[in-house]
Amino acid sequence: MKKVINAPERVVEDMLRGMELAHGGLIRVIPESNVVVRADAPVEGKVALVSGGGSGHEPTHGGFVGPGMLDAACAGSVFTSPTPDQMFEASKAVDGGAGVFYVVKNYTGDVLNFEMAGELGEAEGIETDYVVTNDDVAVEDSTYTSGRRGIAGTIFVHKICGAAADDGKDLAGIKELAERVNSNVRSMGMALTSCTPPESGEPIFDIGEDEMEIGIGIHGEPGVERKNVAPADQIVDEMLEKILGDSVDFSGSEVAVMVNGMGGTPVMELYVAYAHVADVLEREGVQVWRMPYVGDYMTSLEMAGFSITLLKLDDEMKPYLTAPCDVAAGRPF
Amino acid sequence: MKKVINAPERVVEDMLRGMELAHGGLIRVIPESNVVVRADAPVEGKVALVSGGGSGHEPTHGGFVGPGMLDAACAGSVFTSPTPDQMFEASKAVDGGAGVFYVVKNYTGDVLNFEMAGELGEAEGIETDYVVTNDDVAVEDSTYTSGRRGIAGTIFVHKICGAAADDGKDLAGIKELAERVNSNVRSMGMALTSCTPPESGEPIFDIGEDEMEIGIGIHGEPGVERKNVAPADQIVDEMLEKILGDSVDFSGSEVAVMVNGMGGTPVMELYVAYAHVADVLEREGVQVWRMPYVGDYMTSLEMAGFSITLLKLDDEMKPYLTAPCDVAAGRPF
Repeated sequence: MKKVINAPERVVEDMLRGMELAHGGLIRVIPESNVVVRADAPVEGKVALVSGGGSGHEPTHGGFVGPGMLDAACAGSVFTSPTPDQMFEASKAVDGGAGVFYVVKNYTGDVLNFEMAGELGEAEGIETDYVVTNDDVAVEDSTYTSGRRGIAGTIFVHKICGAAADDGKDLAGIKELAERVNSNVRSMGMALTSCTPPESGEPIFDIGEDEMEIGIGIHGEPGVERKNVAPADQIVDEMLEKILGDSVDFSGSEVAVMVNGMGGTPVMELYVAYAHVADVLEREGVQVWRMPYVGDYMTSLEMAGFSITLLKLDDEMKPYLTAPCDVAAGRPF
Repeated sequence: MKKVINAPERVVEDMLRGMELAHGGLIRVIPESNVVVRADAPVEGKVALVSGGGSGHEPTHGGFVGPGMLDAACAGSVFTSPTPDQMFEASKAVDGGAGVFYVVKNYTGDVLNFEMAGELGEAEGIETDYVVTNDDVAVEDSTYTSGRRGIAGTIFVHKICGAAADDGKDLAGIKELAERVNSNVRSMGMALTSCTPPESGEPIFDIGEDEMEIGIGIHGEPGVERKNVAPADQIVDEMLEKILGDSVDFSGSEVAVMVNGMGGTPVMELYVAYAHVADVLEREGVQVWRMPYVGDYMTSLEMAGFSITLLKLDDEMKPYLTAPCDVAAGRPF
């Protein structure tokens, strides 16, 4: 294992310290808690959005904390759920009196812990509610998940509900919107390589020199099929066939499209993949709305691979998706 | 070699097609030329900024084309200089009558070809001038370079001169400003792994399972030292010692700071590195201006590693550095 780290056991703390030092005007880290919070939290009268999960998916989630997106993100150890205590600390820090809404990716630990945090919050008079995202069409149950996994489509929930919360939508309204986004978003991933969590020092799975895994999860959970690497167009065909064949009818609709890098994928390859995504969507009568989102949004450390996400938009989602936001992940200049 | 590509010989074309399909309102690609141009070029009366180089450094350079930064970027084959013809095509496409300014990273092929393109342009009545960036303090001469190499500090030239050109600065003024930025910017890189250009299918160098290369170039050119991987803080110490010990006196100044990922480095590790960069700069009395730039700006395909860049700012550079720009690399939402 070769990494730019000091010690495996303090990699999350070092990262969060670096984020806080880099983006001090935007975020702060609750001491001892590994919780990233908007610098100006709590915002009085606004529903607060909280997400979180294992670390190693950066810029998810801490990179999406800021005005217009998340109020807080709880960082677990790498690929490990954060604790109910972290989520409760986050809730107390961001509650502005209008309730706290949890965006939870469907992994058993995350769901249980956010549910428990909600109970802790309610006991302290903080109103809470949550959505469990499950956009991954690859498999119905998985290593750490009962039902479908929540992956990169979750970012659209953060963005759209973050803007809606800024816009004054109440907790019940945010929940309805989050459920609606989740019902209309579908994703699928693939990987060429494994990745190595610093704490274990071992790759999360082994894969052959000429193999790829289609439908892989963001923690290396098995996908649909392990086979020889195919040309990019063929990989995209297979992923889109599964996404477009699922229960959301995207044809004839305006769709937000994300081609998400897994962390070790050159930008070059993401655009090679997008070229064919655009071709297939045009052929299938799916209209790409504005510019697609091509880049690293939800990664798996240094894994090489990518995911495709489609979100069928309605008229309420569109202005929220394009509303300004100010987050660490979105500031090249 | 495992990559998300269709065929090694068309990887640059496929990538540019994907970029054009993704960012059609922002850029276009000159057919058969592998030149990315602002969609609204030429802008009458504005100095046009053109850069370029080998592909494989994405989002450099095509990702920085757009209002407020570059007017055009010439994409060579991977790690191979673009041709004078490409640069000449770019010049014709973007010249708005106020001249064309080339931002050239110091690699022998790039410099010769941009000089030749300038002559072709002048022969057609297009006024041209250029800067050769050489911010890399690692070595004085290198595999493809006489003198110091131009690396990630070049992005600051694009941003500052791009804003200045928008602001109406003339060709001589842009050249003076570009030279001034280049004189005040210093960088150094390191790598944990090699990378594999699709065309050759072979890693550009070999490196041991427990080794790193300090001072590496963006095409794998040898650096200062090959040695065992050290903790992040120690790596940062070594890089900053060389940068701060060079000819620009950063102490007591406001400095723009970039921690640039090489393509295969998890965001987590960039922030781990930044935490110590911030500590060292504070100790040395160097003031980090606003938020630092942490992310993948100038990559080497899937190489794991990072570079540090410091730019000593003056009062003219600051507003240009923060001026709005609209480029593909800068649009997470």
